[in-house]
Amino acid sequence: MTETPTNSQSTPLVGIIMGSQSDLKVMEPAAEMLETMNIPFELTIVSAHRTPHRMVEYAENARKRGLRVIIAGAGGAAHLPGMVAALTTLPVIGVPVRSSNSIDGWDSILSILQMPGGIPVATVALNGAQNAGLLAAQILGTFNAAIADRLDKYRNSLREKVMRSVDELRRGDRDDD
Amino acid sequence: MTETPTNSQSTPLVGIIMGSQSDLKVMEPAAEMLETMNIPFELTIVSAHRTPHRMVEYAENARKRGLRVIIAGAGGAAHLPGMVAALTTLPVIGVPVRSSNSIDGWDSILSILQMPGGIPVATVALNGAQNAGLLAAQILGTFNAAIADRLDKYRNSLREKVMRSVDELRRGDRDDD
Amino acid sequence: MTETPTNSQSTPLVGIIMGSQSDLKVMEPAAEMLETMNIPFELTIVSAHRTPHRMVEYAENARKRGLRVIIAGAGGAAHLPGMVAALTTLPVIGVPVRSSNSIDGWDSILSILQMPGGIPVATVALNGAQNAGLLAAQILGTFNAAIADRLDKYRNSLREKVMRSVDELRRGDRDDD
Amino acid sequence: MTETPTNSQSTPLVGIIMGSQSDLKVMEPAAEMLETMNIPFELTIVSAHRTPHRMVEYAENARKRGLRVIIAGAGGAAHLPGMVAALTTLPVIGVPVRSSNSIDGWDSILSILQMPGGIPVATVALNGAQNAGLLAAQILGTFNAAIADRLDKYRNSLREKVMRSVDELRRGDRDDD
Amino acid sequence: MTETPTNSQSTPLVGIIMGSQSDLKVMEPAAEMLETMNIPFELTIVSAHRTPHRMVEYAENARKRGLRVIIAGAGGAAHLPGMVAALTTLPVIGVPVRSSNSIDGWDSILSILQMPGGIPVATVALNGAQNAGLLAAQILGTFNAAIADRLDKYRNSLREKVMRSVDELRRGDRDDD
Amino acid sequence: MTETPTNSQSTPLVGIIMGSQSDLKVMEPAAEMLETMNIPFELTIVSAHRTPHRMVEYAENARKRGLRVIIAGAGGAAHLPGMVAALTTLPVIGVPVRSSNSIDGWDSILSILQMPGGIPVATVALNGAQNAGLLAAQILGTFNAAIADRLDKYRNSLREKVMRSVDELRRGDRDDD
Amino acid sequence: MTETPTNSQSTPLVGIIMGSQSDLKVMEPAAEMLETMNIPFELTIVSAHRTPHRMVEYAENARKRGLRVIIAGAGGAAHLPGMVAALTTLPVIGVPVRSSNSIDGWDSILSILQMPGGIPVATVALNGAQNAGLLAAQILGTFNAAIADRLDKYRNSLREKVMRSVDELRRGDRDDD
Amino acid sequence: MTETPTNSQSTPLVGIIMGSQSDLKVMEPAAEMLETMNIPFELTIVSAHRTPHRMVEYAENARKRGLRVIIAGAGGAAHLPGMVAALTTLPVIGVPVRSSNSIDGWDSILSILQMPGGIPVATVALNGAQNAGLLAAQILGTFNAAIADRLDKYRNSLREKVMRSVDELRRGDRDDD
Repeated sequence: MTETPTNSQSTPLVGIIMGSQSDLKVMEPAAEMLETMNIPFELTIVSAHRTPHRMVEYAENARKRGLRVIIAGAGGAAHLPGMVAALTTLPVIGVPVRSSNSIDGWDSILSILQMPGGIPVATVALNGAQNAGLLAAQILGTFNAAIADRLDKYRNSLREKVMRSVDELRRGDRDDD
Repeated sequence: MTETPTNSQSTPLVGIIMGSQSDLKVMEPAAEMLETMNIPFELTIVSAHRTPHRMVEYAENARKRGLRVIIAGAGGAAHLPGMVAALTTLPVIGVPVRSSNSIDGWDSILSILQMPGGIPVATVALNGAQNAGLLAAQILGTFNAAIADRLDKYRNSLREKVMRSVDELRRGDRDDD
Repeated sequence: MTETPTNSQSTPLVGIIMGSQSDLKVMEPAAEMLETMNIPFELTIVSAHRTPHRMVEYAENARKRGLRVIIAGAGGAAHLPGMVAALTTLPVIGVPVRSSNSIDGWDSILSILQMPGGIPVATVALNGAQNAGLLAAQILGTFNAAIADRLDKYRNSLREKVMRSVDELRRGDRDDD
Repeated sequence: MTETPTNSQSTPLVGIIMGSQSDLKVMEPAAEMLETMNIPFELTIVSAHRTPHRMVEYAENARKRGLRVIIAGAGGAAHLPGMVAALTTLPVIGVPVRSSNSIDGWDSILSILQMPGGIPVATVALNGAQNAGLLAAQILGTFNAAIADRLDKYRNSLREKVMRSVDELRRGDRDDD
Repeated sequence: MTETPTNSQSTPLVGIIMGSQSDLKVMEPAAEMLETMNIPFELTIVSAHRTPHRMVEYAENARKRGLRVIIAGAGGAAHLPGMVAALTTLPVIGVPVRSSNSIDGWDSILSILQMPGGIPVATVALNGAQNAGLLAAQILGTFNAAIADRLDKYRNSLREKVMRSVDELRRGDRDDD
Repeated sequence: MTETPTNSQSTPLVGIIMGSQSDLKVMEPAAEMLETMNIPFELTIVSAHRTPHRMVEYAENARKRGLRVIIAGAGGAAHLPGMVAALTTLPVIGVPVRSSNSIDGWDSILSILQMPGGIPVATVALNGAQNAGLLAAQILGTFNAAIADRLDKYRNSLREKVMRSVDELRRGDRDDD
Repeated sequence: MTETPTNSQSTPLVGIIMGSQSDLKVMEPAAEMLETMNIPFELTIVSAHRTPHRMVEYAENARKRGLRVIIAGAGGAAHLPGMVAALTTLPVIGVPVRSSNSIDGWDSILSILQMPGGIPVATVALNGAQNAGLLAAQILGTFNAAIADRLDKYRNSLREKVMRSVDELRRGDRDDD
Repeated sequence: MTETPTNSQSTPLVGIIMGSQSDLKVMEPAAEMLETMNIPFELTIVSAHRTPHRMVEYAENARKRGLRVIIAGAGGAAHLPGMVAALTTLPVIGVPVRSSNSIDGWDSILSILQMPGGIPVATVALNGAQNAGLLAAQILGTFNAAIADRLDKYRNSLREKVMRSVDELRRGDRDDD
């Protein structure tokens, strides 16, 4: 099984997987964040329940294929992140998806978060794929100064966006006088 | 992988599995019910997260080994029942366990019950292993008149037990006069 | 009380019942799945609260009428599956319906799932009628090789559908290059 | 089926029923309150799931036997109050019981409270059997001045008990001076 | 304070009150049910929080004004039913309203249902005003044969409605042949 | 109705009330905090449901009696804080109590917090009476420099307590070497 | 950091802050209520997560800048109110916002309400910004007779609005006659 | 501020912090796991609410002090993990603690997990400190072959422990024969 890197000439460092094509819209911000961080990644569908052998193969080959982090999104009885985590010792980031078959996301959260001792999943917020991409970058940034720099720049951009809305509110008030 | 039938000389028809030895106390009533129904079964530990390959093997060989129903109990992010269901077309009965790492059982229930379309798990009540055993008997009783008879007798025993407590209450009242 | 088999010349093996005509849209995938599996079934309305005697009659005659499995859907204080289960020893599959009077489905799930010892209901996911039909087929497939074959084919079709979306994603990426 | 009136020579006006003898401890305060109100009642076990025919008979004969109100307690997938309500037009008071098989009482509450249009159950608080007895008395007191008087006296006793604790606190403070 | 009876020349027996005019749409089915049952009632706004003195006056005068049952609907921190119950010994039926300021109805349910010992509220389902009207009729029907007859007729109409949908489904199937 | 000030010769500025003597243990930390802050207070029992007139009188006289803040604790269907808030324009601090009749505190929280527009209750954490006392001090400290100073000192004591545990941990580690 | 007072020539007494411009629509009723009460305030964006230093500075300077109360709104993992409360001893009113990233508001409520001992946040209802503004006025009204008068007038207006809807309902009934 | 490395002569790579000494018992398994993985770490108390400046300093200096991962545990309105994540771009692992002031852990989970876009926290299960330590090792193992080897060995040990319990069960059955 070979996955074509979605982004670029280089070997993907992050694998973004999800249980169903219907999760794609929720999961794409993970890919966009990795593009922002200039981190090569791949994105594909791996279903724990409909393609269990593909899941085993994907998870067990991940490290040797060069992946350093796996982002896995799923909804409802969301087993993909935890099962992938059971099949690799790479860090696995779980994204609970508020899918149409989910009970307002509670099932997605609990079946990803509440892993037993020995098999952690780094869970982010419901539909939090953007943060999953960012967390993957932070993990890679632990040993990579260039990524760490980009993370700092991104943080600054968040702060500046807030400060712009502060200014807008302030000017808006003046206009009212 | 061969499992020694827990009960008897005959080939087991029901496999009772659970994620951890600590679930044994909760799961034993499933075995006791099958003994009551005189249905051969086996009971063993299969962990989705700590022994994923054993789980794949167990589930994929179940039908050819003669099993007709699998009962799987797990707590917390309880992936065992759903993953086994993904690896066999035998009916899988899921028992959500209120284990020590569970949030009052909500995680166990939701991660077993909320399976996506295509992979059902027949979920019973929290800690409902006795009912899992009974449901397995009902499934086998669909085509087996002897088991169906035993199910009727068991039902009668439930009714009689209620009627005995009705009588006790009534006599208790008379004694008070 | 006679129910005209919905599907075909043969005696129905599965009875699909629901508490109200308004549940029909949610419950129809159960019927469609049984048609896919070529299993004769009947479908009708049986209300625990508005037609309790009809419910008693339906449940108590089910086995002698040739039914092997009952699928019962209900929402809110959903008593139909559990009460039918109390009146027959056939396996009863409960479908919690997210009906308009339900609190996001929590009441439907809990009043179907949390049955006391002695009276199991095989509960599937909220609005999971398709899986209820599939679980009925798996129960019948336990002793019927033709159904078991169809279940295998269906499983393959699920896997192939995932693999087609894998391919689409991959081609989509190439197109972007 | 005849129930011996628990209290006295007169025909019982209130029937207290519960699904299991294990609910007796939770349900007894209903009986005690009716005794306080000098209202004849009977108390017995009726299980929706283990004695469904007894339940039908009990509910359908209740009015002609002279009962005016039924109090029904149950836990977990608590179907007794709603099913009895479906089989009589007497007012049925439901007591959700926090039984050992209940998930902190949520299942008990929701499966009693969330009845569909047409079949109400007057639900009281979790384990609120005392209030169930009181509500039965209030219903009977609607047309019975003697009971209405006793209700007023009971209310006064509640107020006086609060005022005594007010005094105790006040004196306690003085002692501290 | 005098309330003009909404329905008819006779003294109202049931008072329907709600915390806000915005609850009117949810509460109207209570009035419609009482009209169906030919029971005189009144309907008005009484806010526990915005008109506490009006609430005290309404509740304390209810019995002497001839009311036999009070139906009180409220949403969010829904104090009206419980406070009215604290100020009269008439039976009070509480209707939890899924109002715009409510968290999916959970706050409305819990703040009406979970009354302390001594002050019961007969709680019906979320937005269950129709059942509140019906429960009021059942309470009055306890001592009124004419109302009891109408309750029987209404029950029959519910059953017949189900049987008509059974027939429609059956004919629908034949048409398909 | 006169309440003896619990603390001291001066007129109480804060009234601490609770629905039942059984809440006393949970509510006492509010009193202790006010003593720490040297703020005169009174403490008594006022039950919304058992002494509604006392509640009206207490709330309506509070401001003229010199109270500036009311702290009200209650559990279950906790109406006391919201009803008092409806009867005064003094700030009312609500303490949800995890009482024995509460469902793990959820009912207490929601029936205090979810007040409608126009009648706020300043809600603190479940069983958070200590913080209620502190919040009352912060409200009084808004215009009182002496109290503001004591609040600063208290804050410092919290920080110092943390730093002491930091030191203990550090020394503990050295001991292990 | 200086904030331009939103309302008027005078020094703001209340600071309204929120984590994001997207919360503005939910938070504006706090400002409107303060305008109604003629209390000078300022309104700006302060993000705990994107501008933590701005938050520290804002909270620590609040008292010396003349603020007496801070209203802080946030959604999801809502840390702003609690962190501001940790950095000042002014009373902090927290408004849980049902933001788009929130799970129906439960996360917003719990992460604002459940503060540890020593650092209270006066929490109001979900999206309850109007009540936050009112509570701020009540706090200021504790020592300010003019504000207390306005609070009384506002209370009267609430009562009168209810009474107008009472009249409308009554006239509506007459028209029907 | 210097923290003495808890484990060893080398610079700590992981910082374990918690809001209160009372969390120590829950958090210690994180330290034990890092010792097992032979990864130098430090452990100390940092309270978001009682020592906010210490928190800012700790988080902002973490990377330059050589830390690569921060593990932060907290309960109730658990702001520590999210605030630390806002003050560094190192990966922050959040451990929701079921502390005595928590509502069964729901508040702890939601206030750590539900972070807004831009500031991820890698959340593990309730009381899942052992998995937090393991996840930190997996993050470090991404670029460190020795740690990756130890992770493999640990995984094997988990599997072997399951297999030993499989054997014990099997032998136990034989003994029964």
